[in-house]
Amino acid sequence: MRRYARPLLPLLTAGLLLASADEPGTLIGFTAERSRVERDWESKFQAIPEPDSLRSYLRHLAAWPHNIGSPYGRANAEWLAAQFQSWGWQASIDSFLVLFPTPKERIVELVAPTRFKAALQEPTLAADPTSGQRSEQLPTYNAYSIDGDVTAPLIYVNYGMPADYERLDRMGISVKGAIVLARYGAGWRGLKPKLAAEHGAVGCLIYSDPRDDGYTAGDPYPTGAYRPKEGVQRGSVLDMPVEPGDPLTPNTGAWPNARRLPTDSAQGLTRIPVLPISWGDASPLLSALGGPVAPEGWRGGLPFTYHVGPGPAQVHLKTAYNWKLVPAYDVVARLEGAESPGQWIMRGNHHDGWVNGAEDPISGLVAELEEARALGDLARQGWRPRRTIIYLAWDGEEPGLLGSTEWVEAHADELKAHGAVYINSDGNGRGFLGADGSHSLERLVNEVARDVKDPETGLSVWQRLQLQRISQASKAEDRAGLRSGDDLRLGALGSGSDFTPFLQHAGIATLSLGFGGEDGGGVYHSIYDSYTWYERFDDTSFVYGRALAQTAGTTVMRLADADVLPFRFSGTTRAIQTYLVELRKLATARRDSIAEQNREIGEGVYSAIADPHERSVPPALQVEPPYLNFAPLENAVAGFAGSAARYDSVLALATGPAAAVDSALARSLDAILMNVEPALLSPAGLPGRPWFRHQLYAPGLLTGYGVKTVPGVREAIEASQWSLADSMIVQTANAIDAAASVVDSATALLTHRQP
Amino acid sequence: MRRYARPLLPLLTAGLLLASADEPGTLIGFTAERSRVERDWESKFQAIPEPDSLRSYLRHLAAWPHNIGSPYGRANAEWLAAQFQSWGWQASIDSFLVLFPTPKERIVELVAPTRFKAALQEPTLAADPTSGQRSEQLPTYNAYSIDGDVTAPLIYVNYGMPADYERLDRMGISVKGAIVLARYGAGWRGLKPKLAAEHGAVGCLIYSDPRDDGYTAGDPYPTGAYRPKEGVQRGSVLDMPVEPGDPLTPNTGAWPNARRLPTDSAQGLTRIPVLPISWGDASPLLSALGGPVAPEGWRGGLPFTYHVGPGPAQVHLKTAYNWKLVPAYDVVARLEGAESPGQWIMRGNHHDGWVNGAEDPISGLVAELEEARALGDLARQGWRPRRTIIYLAWDGEEPGLLGSTEWVEAHADELKAHGAVYINSDGNGRGFLGADGSHSLERLVNEVARDVKDPETGLSVWQRLQLQRISQASKAEDRAGLRSGDDLRLGALGSGSDFTPFLQHAGIATLSLGFGGEDGGGVYHSIYDSYTWYERFDDTSFVYGRALAQTAGTTVMRLADADVLPFRFSGTTRAIQTYLVELRKLATARRDSIAEQNREIGEGVYSAIADPHERSVPPALQVEPPYLNFAPLENAVAGFAGSAARYDSVLALATGPAAAVDSALARSLDAILMNVEPALLSPAGLPGRPWFRHQLYAPGLLTGYGVKTVPGVREAIEASQWSLADSMIVQTANAIDAAASVVDSATALLTHRQP
Repeated sequence: MRRYARPLLPLLTAGLLLASADEPGTLIGFTAERSRVERDWESKFQAIPEPDSLRSYLRHLAAWPHNIGSPYGRANAEWLAAQFQSWGWQASIDSFLVLFPTPKERIVELVAPTRFKAALQEPTLAADPTSGQRSEQLPTYNAYSIDGDVTAPLIYVNYGMPADYERLDRMGISVKGAIVLARYGAGWRGLKPKLAAEHGAVGCLIYSDPRDDGYTAGDPYPTGAYRPKEGVQRGSVLDMPVEPGDPLTPNTGAWPNARRLPTDSAQGLTRIPVLPISWGDASPLLSALGGPVAPEGWRGGLPFTYHVGPGPAQVHLKTAYNWKLVPAYDVVARLEGAESPGQWIMRGNHHDGWVNGAEDPISGLVAELEEARALGDLARQGWRPRRTIIYLAWDGEEPGLLGSTEWVEAHADELKAHGAVYINSDGNGRGFLGADGSHSLERLVNEVARDVKDPETGLSVWQRLQLQRISQASKAEDRAGLRSGDDLRLGALGSGSDFTPFLQHAGIATLSLGFGGEDGGGVYHSIYDSYTWYERFDDTSFVYGRALAQTAGTTVMRLADADVLPFRFSGTTRAIQTYLVELRKLATARRDSIAEQNREIGEGVYSAIADPHERSVPPALQVEPPYLNFAPLENAVAGFAGSAARYDSVLALATGPAAAVDSALARSLDAILMNVEPALLSPAGLPGRPWFRHQLYAPGLLTGYGVKTVPGVREAIEASQWSLADSMIVQTANAIDAAASVVDSATALLTHRQP
Repeated sequence: MRRYARPLLPLLTAGLLLASADEPGTLIGFTAERSRVERDWESKFQAIPEPDSLRSYLRHLAAWPHNIGSPYGRANAEWLAAQFQSWGWQASIDSFLVLFPTPKERIVELVAPTRFKAALQEPTLAADPTSGQRSEQLPTYNAYSIDGDVTAPLIYVNYGMPADYERLDRMGISVKGAIVLARYGAGWRGLKPKLAAEHGAVGCLIYSDPRDDGYTAGDPYPTGAYRPKEGVQRGSVLDMPVEPGDPLTPNTGAWPNARRLPTDSAQGLTRIPVLPISWGDASPLLSALGGPVAPEGWRGGLPFTYHVGPGPAQVHLKTAYNWKLVPAYDVVARLEGAESPGQWIMRGNHHDGWVNGAEDPISGLVAELEEARALGDLARQGWRPRRTIIYLAWDGEEPGLLGSTEWVEAHADELKAHGAVYINSDGNGRGFLGADGSHSLERLVNEVARDVKDPETGLSVWQRLQLQRISQASKAEDRAGLRSGDDLRLGALGSGSDFTPFLQHAGIATLSLGFGGEDGGGVYHSIYDSYTWYERFDDTSFVYGRALAQTAGTTVMRLADADVLPFRFSGTTRAIQTYLVELRKLATARRDSIAEQNREIGEGVYSAIADPHERSVPPALQVEPPYLNFAPLENAVAGFAGSAARYDSVLALATGPAAAVDSALARSLDAILMNVEPALLSPAGLPGRPWFRHQLYAPGLLTGYGVKTVPGVREAIEASQWSLADSMIVQTANAIDAAASVVDSATALLTHRQP
């Protein structure tokens, strides 16, 4: 129900005297005195991580191919557990059994007008020793493609995203019955076969154009960091934007004895066969195409004129897989909390790679490991976290967030009771802090980022990021905001890594951290993502590995040690206010652009401007969108803003000099605060994908990785589903209302009032 | 001096009763009765041009290489004069003698780290017969490069424009002592060696990147219309933005007996040797470069990673030329005016090509010829233009607007007395009407464009253009303006063709007309710009040649026949109001961006965001711009607007049913109207280039072809010359004031009042 602004009631709970943000050196969630203690421990912590340790972990963990189901993947999991144990953690391995297809047969060949058989093989490079581990490497393929055997005319579809199919429609070209050739990029790879199939294609090839991550972008490996001619991006095409995790155990943990769907009923497989290829293999196919010249934005970096087809190129595509169950080994390590062991601060990174996976994922995992070593060291020196810390190393992220999703599904009840925060990383690079996540953690992340030093400049990582954002801001008012010292905004989370089940399914406040921006390259998901590549071209001296360990580890400590969970909802307010503005603009823009297009169709603009030497089909008339009722969302956002402001005010009034904390009251407050993020879930989930329950953050159904904020509403508007948009406005408003009520409960607890 | 709005004085001159624009079918400048007569003649005229005639002229004129000084160039001039004569025109040839260097020796070779000698030769193609006329073809070169012989490290400078040198500065790379390799595009070619020399380079190579007009843009010739591997863009590098025309006879007609500078004092030559090359020749040079990877926007379509250098590539560049005087043959054909023979309506297109020049320039010239045939035909049927019509075919446009500039300089006094309007074309394509020029002719061009049919759609060319502009407009208010039926805006004229001496030196109201937008290709200034290419890929059925003849010819007739010259100054008002808004925005943007950059330098943004693995130099602090005094220009624009509105009102009041026209009064009015455009000249010309005198339109000193409107002010702001900007505001305001005074004189004449 709606709440309206109530007068602030300064009836403060005695005993909970937290530090003010204004008091120098104090930390949110801590009393002034406990801030000083925390800072001491954090200083000790930050001094521990060592580049040489990171380097040696990475060299070990990336020494051999370690995909899910591989011997070295299992060995890595066991080694990880042993490391945690050696540092004083309770460590164990949760083993699941999941469907993981591997190739039995792969054929891509041009059968007309000339013949060419694709190699589908990344060659060994003398400069890169692990590239020669042929028998241990997974072949180049897209996991969860179906088996298939098709021969059909080829059509080039650019990135194969929705706008590309609209463009094809305008050219009067249908992919029905064709094999599409799409280039990697512009959206998650799994959407390419999905959209191709929806448009009637019978097969899909995905290649890496040199313009995107090959020679046009930079010198190819091993001269430089970019994708060589035969380099291939492996990757999953499981329908993860609908539901990630094991395709045979939807919504439930894939314990070995779990009830499973039969393999032929597996969820989320592609409808057509798909394979990834190198530009070396794509080149003869693409250059054999006729038909119209590809639109300007479709042209890549290959040295010929890109045509769309269809034909005369005819392609034979065959895929056959071993549809096997393999074990997934999630490593779980705990440091038990001293005062609130039932509140879990979790930190994870996956350990499986497509091949050697030095950058993806090991460069992030080694930072996590070094954090664990340092925290173990602190514990030996007497440090005791208030809350329980759980460090996780996931298996099977690459095929479909398998290890994390199954773990979250398997431990759903415990997580509901105990899950406070999850912090993810997934590799690491060099440059600037990247931080995305729940906006209730925005304040905390800003505070931590001011306390970690950037290794290249000596500035804090916060300051380096602030200066970058100033340099990139296009509007004077944005620069003014950045210069005011306001919190830097967290990005919202889409998908593509293990945070998804925590945030979007379980409703646990989540962060994703990593450094990047100075670490370009093109070895992603290839055999060349190796130790050799990483230490030549990425975080060459492992100082950003240390910076990630310092950033994530400090965040973990502050969350684990705080007197009260350091959530601040003004960040959430700002985020949802921004989203509301965006949605209103989007609805107006859609209405205007549809009306304008209809008008231009009526005026004959399309036929008047078409070049009669080229085939051109005007767009169809569209129903003009109605005005949407945004009022429920506007009221909910305003209500949440009031709730967040009242909570902040009450906390500010609770400020004083160093004071003891009433632990029982703090635990009660924490218990309430832990319910804010779950309140943002709706039991019904998002339209067509009930597994995704968060009403503020989701991967886009048509972006795959990229976030859609307020996804129910936004995607309905984008899809011209106007009555759905109206109902999703209500559903989202209800979730925001529910979250506001929880925040009000926290305020009430602090003011001795029940809401 | 400034004038302020005065009450309108409806004391109309008897006898000058022009048609109202509201009266259906009447034409501006004509009485209603005379409009009907004019329309009859125009209908007859428009029925005459024939695609087959155009095709046969083009085939003849492009049959052999016909550059200035060539035997076929002379034969073409004589053939043209004979054609005009055969159609009843008085035709003659004005012969000038001009400096035109041709190559004696050309060497481009890579001398380190490997050796490669550039072919500098466009191969014969079996599919294109005239491509085999080897002995008649001019070699590939840039005219007015100096002789030189240099060996130096190579540096890739992208397009070699000012922003590219700023980027090089930020990378810490100087071209001092180097040979620069620039790609064609983004600005006029002559600026590339000029800017390179200013930055200390010792040589310059300019190549055609396949991304810009080769295989990335479309299938290469002869499969498609785009530049093949060995195709080279010839072209002049004379310093035309400072002064076009013969380098030995600045400001005076290059008659054979004219006083000449010695050849070694020729004006406007480059300071360093320069040669154009194909991408086939550029590829080994470019791929031999080391140093940093080229910035993203610098990367072209060749299949390797673009590096900037300097070195290790070392290049030897040698140029030596025959510095000879050659004759320039301007064909001049007249149809004498019946009533106002002293008012000249001129129409021109050049006849020289770099090689066979089918598209450039013959496709435009053949339309002009067909107009002349049709007008001759009308004259035989009894049509008599009121004013004198002069049709011109220029020689030596390619090297430096030689024929037109010398003719304008040689006939300066006659043009001052008689020059009313000049209409230019320079080739023709397929698609949409392109119309640029003096805004006093905007109304007229709109009227004509409504009366010519687009051959592909059956719409008027005006309507097709309107619909295209609607489809391209990004703002709703722009679309609303377009839909209201308002006059379509004329573009302003920069340079690159023979209109320049007429408009920007002599101050004659000028138009440039041509069709295009559906005629892409990459044979510009190569041996492949041939009849074969043109009729396969451009205006394949010559219907747009007919449309150009209809458009330009109708414009000529209306100008020649009108009772009063059909100038309307509301178009000028709209244009200068727009320019004023732009200039104020530009000054503000420059001030803001300099202030912001200085601030970021102070904040340490540049050092904070620089990647220490790459060399990076922060920009230098700049003096922050003062506020400029725009008041003189604002007052002048407001004053002109009032003058134009009063003239329009008086003309509207002069409207009535068909009436006789007092010829003497009309001639007096014409004489005044012909003085409006010259009033926009300043005797001092533009800063550093006094030959360019027009205060509203000039080619940019740093764009070469591209227009800079209000150039004195705009370029001073862009160059941070703030006190110059203030003084140029006054100079421009004075010119606009002077023009307004002339308009006021016209109004006064119509109202029996002296101004």
